[in-house]
Amino acid sequence: MSRLRVHNFAISLDGFGTGEGQAPGRPFGHAGERLHEWMFATHYWYAMGGGEGGGTGADDAFATMHGQGIGAEIMGAGKFGPPGWQDDPGYRGAWGPNPPFHSPVFVLTHRPRPSIEMRGGTTFHFLDASPADALKQARDAAGGLDVRLGGGPTIIRDFVAEGLVDHMHVVQVPILLGRGVRLWDGLESLEEAYDIEAVSTPSGVTHLTFTAKGR
Amino acid sequence: MSRLRVHNFAISLDGFGTGEGQAPGRPFGHAGERLHEWMFATHYWYAMGGGEGGGTGADDAFATMHGQGIGAEIMGAGKFGPPGWQDDPGYRGAWGPNPPFHSPVFVLTHRPRPSIEMRGGTTFHFLDASPADALKQARDAAGGLDVRLGGGPTIIRDFVAEGLVDHMHVVQVPILLGRGVRLWDGLESLEEAYDIEAVSTPSGVTHLTFTAKGR
Repeated sequence: MSRLRVHNFAISLDGFGTGEGQAPGRPFGHAGERLHEWMFATHYWYAMGGGEGGGTGADDAFATMHGQGIGAEIMGAGKFGPPGWQDDPGYRGAWGPNPPFHSPVFVLTHRPRPSIEMRGGTTFHFLDASPADALKQARDAAGGLDVRLGGGPTIIRDFVAEGLVDHMHVVQVPILLGRGVRLWDGLESLEEAYDIEAVSTPSGVTHLTFTAKGR
Repeated sequence: MSRLRVHNFAISLDGFGTGEGQAPGRPFGHAGERLHEWMFATHYWYAMGGGEGGGTGADDAFATMHGQGIGAEIMGAGKFGPPGWQDDPGYRGAWGPNPPFHSPVFVLTHRPRPSIEMRGGTTFHFLDASPADALKQARDAAGGLDVRLGGGPTIIRDFVAEGLVDHMHVVQVPILLGRGVRLWDGLESLEEAYDIEAVSTPSGVTHLTFTAKGR
């Protein structure tokens, strides 16, 4: 069975997955890079940039799961680009000509456009669809592999609320953002649907994993 | 120097320290006892009830710090009793004739009343005072020992925002309450004032400690 999985989704102690003031070059707003410093220090991240080095402890093990057995990604419009990208017909995403997905990527937007084929196996498709319909299309494209739900927080919350997410890895970073977009709103009693584990690591973050019960 | 300390303050993953619907016998509202099951399983808790047994691992070590070197407590009106207790002139708190504080306790309320001396060394004093003034009075009463800030979430947030808290131990429990009173609101960039550690334990909770920098 092809699962829907969330990986490396970082939030602050106060639950914000994105800060305020998203703009070109500032996809996380006033949070800057602070939600992801734990990941930038891993071997996984170094290797993705073609380099060597980086930590190979627990943070690295969790981070590496991001790409394992994934055949497609679903993301929200706010991850694909800064506010207003829909007004630029030539916009091709925030990752340059060779995006790090190497798979079909389904971008949820109320203003869909023709698909864009990028280098390295990434094709962006644009859907105005419900979570369940988007998941069906992504599964069809994933060739029997799992589908990754890439965020941002609103999209993850929507898919979780509809019971579509099989596995979720959330990384809690010991900072307080104070403002932005919360991950947890409207998900009361989520623990009834998931087995939850918490693991703190020496970098200071806490990895939370959610495994859907009975699947 | 007498420090102001918070201990065993439990919150849900989504940051609520109290649920909705506080009432007599339900001090945490719809959260019930779910925020404190980790503590009820410790030797510390068993011993406080006069019993034997309970776990003696990391949860117990953290829990036991609650009473170490404390000479007075400050608490909010919402911890002293359920909504409306101020209308009952005979109300003597939620803990029976021998409350577990065994020290002076300063209850912050806009409707102060005469002090109440209980059994076992606990005396309740009622103050309509600013956080700084309340702390001064509690320190005077603590005889050189530390002062504990007992909660609820609003009181802790107020004292932290004024820079009065030296040490804070927050226990994050893997449940989502969805509603209630949040601990973290209005505390953006708290990590600049505190060294923060996170430690997950086998019970599933994560202990967060905040140590004020440069004190």
